Amino acid sequence: MINHHFSNDTIVAVATAPGVGAIAVIRLSGPEAITITNTVFKGKDLTTQASHTIHFGTIRDADKVLDEVLVSLFMGPHSYTKEHVVEISCHGSDFIVQQIMQLLLKHGARLANAGEFTKRAFLNGQFDLAQAEAVADLIASDSALSHEVAMKQMRGGFSQEIKRLRGELVHFASMIELELDFGEEDVEFADREQLRTLILHIQGIIRELLKSFELGNVIKNGVPTVIVGKPNAGKSTLLNKLLNEEKAIVSDVPGTTRDFIEDEINISGITFRFIDTAGLRETTDKVEALGVERTMQKLSQSSLIIYLFDITEVTAEEVQAELDRLNPKKMPIVAVANKIDQATPGKLKAFDSIEGLLTISAAKGAHLEELKQGLVEKVNLGKLNVQQHTIVTNLRHVDSLNKTYAALDDVLNGLALGMSGDLVAADIRRALYSLGEITGEITTDDLLDNIFTKFCIGK
Amino acid sequence: MINHHFSNDTIVAVATAPGVGAIAVIRLSGPEAITITNTVFKGKDLTTQASHTIHFGTIRDADKVLDEVLVSLFMGPHSYTKEHVVEISCHGSDFIVQQIMQLLLKHGARLANAGEFTKRAFLNGQFDLAQAEAVADLIASDSALSHEVAMKQMRGGFSQEIKRLRGELVHFASMIELELDFGEEDVEFADREQLRTLILHIQGIIRELLKSFELGNVIKNGVPTVIVGKPNAGKSTLLNKLLNEEKAIVSDVPGTTRDFIEDEINISGITFRFIDTAGLRETTDKVEALGVERTMQKLSQSSLIIYLFDITEVTAEEVQAELDRLNPKKMPIVAVANKIDQATPGKLKAFDSIEGLLTISAAKGAHLEELKQGLVEKVNLGKLNVQQHTIVTNLRHVDSLNKTYAALDDVLNGLALGMSGDLVAADIRRALYSLGEITGEITTDDLLDNIFTKFCIGK
Repeated sequence: MINHHFSNDTIVAVATAPGVGAIAVIRLSGPEAITITNTVFKGKDLTTQASHTIHFGTIRDADKVLDEVLVSLFMGPHSYTKEHVVEISCHGSDFIVQQIMQLLLKHGARLANAGEFTKRAFLNGQFDLAQAEAVADLIASDSALSHEVAMKQMRGGFSQEIKRLRGELVHFASMIELELDFGEEDVEFADREQLRTLILHIQGIIRELLKSFELGNVIKNGVPTVIVGKPNAGKSTLLNKLLNEEKAIVSDVPGTTRDFIEDEINISGITFRFIDTAGLRETTDKVEALGVERTMQKLSQSSLIIYLFDITEVTAEEVQAELDRLNPKKMPIVAVANKIDQATPGKLKAFDSIEGLLTISAAKGAHLEELKQGLVEKVNLGKLNVQQHTIVTNLRHVDSLNKTYAALDDVLNGLALGMSGDLVAADIRRALYSLGEITGEITTDDLLDNIFTKFCIGK
Repeated sequence: MINHHFSNDTIVAVATAPGVGAIAVIRLSGPEAITITNTVFKGKDLTTQASHTIHFGTIRDADKVLDEVLVSLFMGPHSYTKEHVVEISCHGSDFIVQQIMQLLLKHGARLANAGEFTKRAFLNGQFDLAQAEAVADLIASDSALSHEVAMKQMRGGFSQEIKRLRGELVHFASMIELELDFGEEDVEFADREQLRTLILHIQGIIRELLKSFELGNVIKNGVPTVIVGKPNAGKSTLLNKLLNEEKAIVSDVPGTTRDFIEDEINISGITFRFIDTAGLRETTDKVEALGVERTMQKLSQSSLIIYLFDITEVTAEEVQAELDRLNPKKMPIVAVANKIDQATPGKLKAFDSIEGLLTISAAKGAHLEELKQGLVEKVNLGKLNVQQHTIVTNLRHVDSLNKTYAALDDVLNGLALGMSGDLVAADIRRALYSLGEITGEITTDDLLDNIFTKFCIGK
């Protein structure tokens, strides 16, 4: 059902990040990719070279040398887009990149829209829609788990599961539609009981997939985490310790320092995203006099609570009462006793009753590793093997799965009521349509635009 | 005199700018570049492929797929460094880049130092030192002229001139050293008068090269420009108009927006760098009550003065007096009458006596093009054909040229005093040494370190 799409124009975009680097890469795709490049390239005749070869030469605007470059050739269909693709590797100066881009535009290339290379790849059957979406997720991935899930999806893991479900339904749909061809004869090629069993089975899988989104969303966007506690419990000190340590780790490899998102930390491949830390980042948390309402609002946005208290100032009973009050919904909560370096053994002993209590000294940076491991265990992602589970990370897929589920409910109702084959077939087709939207067997222009305009230009 | 340098280790670095892009490129160079990549690459066996070919596959850490990549192979000596070079083109996520980098480091690659790829290229005779330096200039170039000069230098234009001069001197040096071999016999193989003529000729060329640095420096670093005028003349309005228009032009091609240097504009390929505009950028220039001393200090740092006045507030005589007072050294100065939309034709006529007067309305953005062309003409770079002149842009080269010139002076003095051949030969050798430092025929470790540590990592 893929609409093969033969573009009659050639697009161009910068494929590497902007800014100064040793090299930058400009990418062209389309029927004229090689001939346009050849017009401005001085070196070998590119039109007579083999696919997957690299050629040194200069890019010239008339007699003026713009740069010495390497040109990589990919002949369609053996390329990312399945069209002719050329990558020009030039010196990494934005000025030079601009000059070469303008020259290529002058010679007939068109500036690519966001995601247009990947859209062409999809339209030409390089991969399905869920895989194409995973390309963007992969580029945006910033933790081991989000990377792993996006990689699995890009390599077709998720698509296979959806296609398998769809394949089973298609069989029944065609059986029922065959019945319709026989019109008045009242034959049943499709075993109704078998169909019912299949649909219940598929609904079971969809429920699992929908449930995986809770996890998938956390993997993709991080675990929304909140630190609560009385003023002076040491919340800002703890947050700063966690974040600063992270910064030091991140800049391990020079040249790969990434834009650091202020209030995220990465533990064992899981991103913890701290909510509403603006107040905490101040030098003192005395300024923070959170009302009950404000605290509850923060809690409602989070999936994980760190309750921090100063062990020298409170009793175990007070802490337990506060834990119960904060967490009526039984969310994952980690109780953390701070300033244990100032507590006597007797004082510590008194807190044995607090379940899963962690003890730290934020100021001295003591036992922070244990705290981190405690957070990972609470989220309970650590033990999960994302390679072996299919995880939904995309809200669009959730929407399609929900629609499929509802259509299958209608099929079940129809069967229970003994509805005629044509009505049942229509509901099955609705289910097939929604499932097909996920992998792109069913697409509309709006759907495609919506997906690909979120990509970066050059991809 | 190049020391061929056979590295026994393999270096790796990210070659593209950091940040999110469609792709990023990781580059390895050294004897193990291909074998290390092959260890983590699943696809064809890279060790049996031809040079200048591209191969699709995956990068794996044990069983875990880190990314789908394209690997480009360059067999030494047919590569940038003349060693084996591999370029891995992966998805443009810093997380993925970090993962792949760490994997390559684990398998025996070493993180490259700044400029180490280009240093290896130089040591292996790919190009000379002045050409290597031009690579960095090329990457940093941000105007048509700086790009053109850097490109010419990278392609060897400047080096040829220096080598030609050096070649002529070498001939005489060897003649004189031949005399020394004959010791007591008092023969003269080198014609002293011819040598004197040659040295005067070479000194003439060096003077021209040194003079070109004034221009070269302006091309590379921009024309230091200052806007002066009374409070309320409209200086801040003019500056903002010029800079904002520039910003709009710069972002023409999406994806190539460059870091904008606040106070620079680019006109006809020339960069004008505005000095000390902090005060001007404020919403009003009333705050600026520049003392005479402060103004003079600004003027001394600039190469071009824009004197702006409100035509409705002053007479032509006052303006002329101010122009004379500001510019005792006869620096290029552009007189600009502002607010001409509020001036009567009679008023305008009264200013005919001011030489080269430009008339604008900064607030209405009127006649700004004429102002820009006026600035270009004053700098007088526009007519210069940088392709046909050798232009020195590097302070290190200026230093070496000055040393050469001084050594040649000593040769001339020696000849005039009838000094013995061995003393003359020593001075010629000093001149040869300094000239040789420019192109790297003479190098020291310190010199190389000093040059290449200024490069970005990955180049």
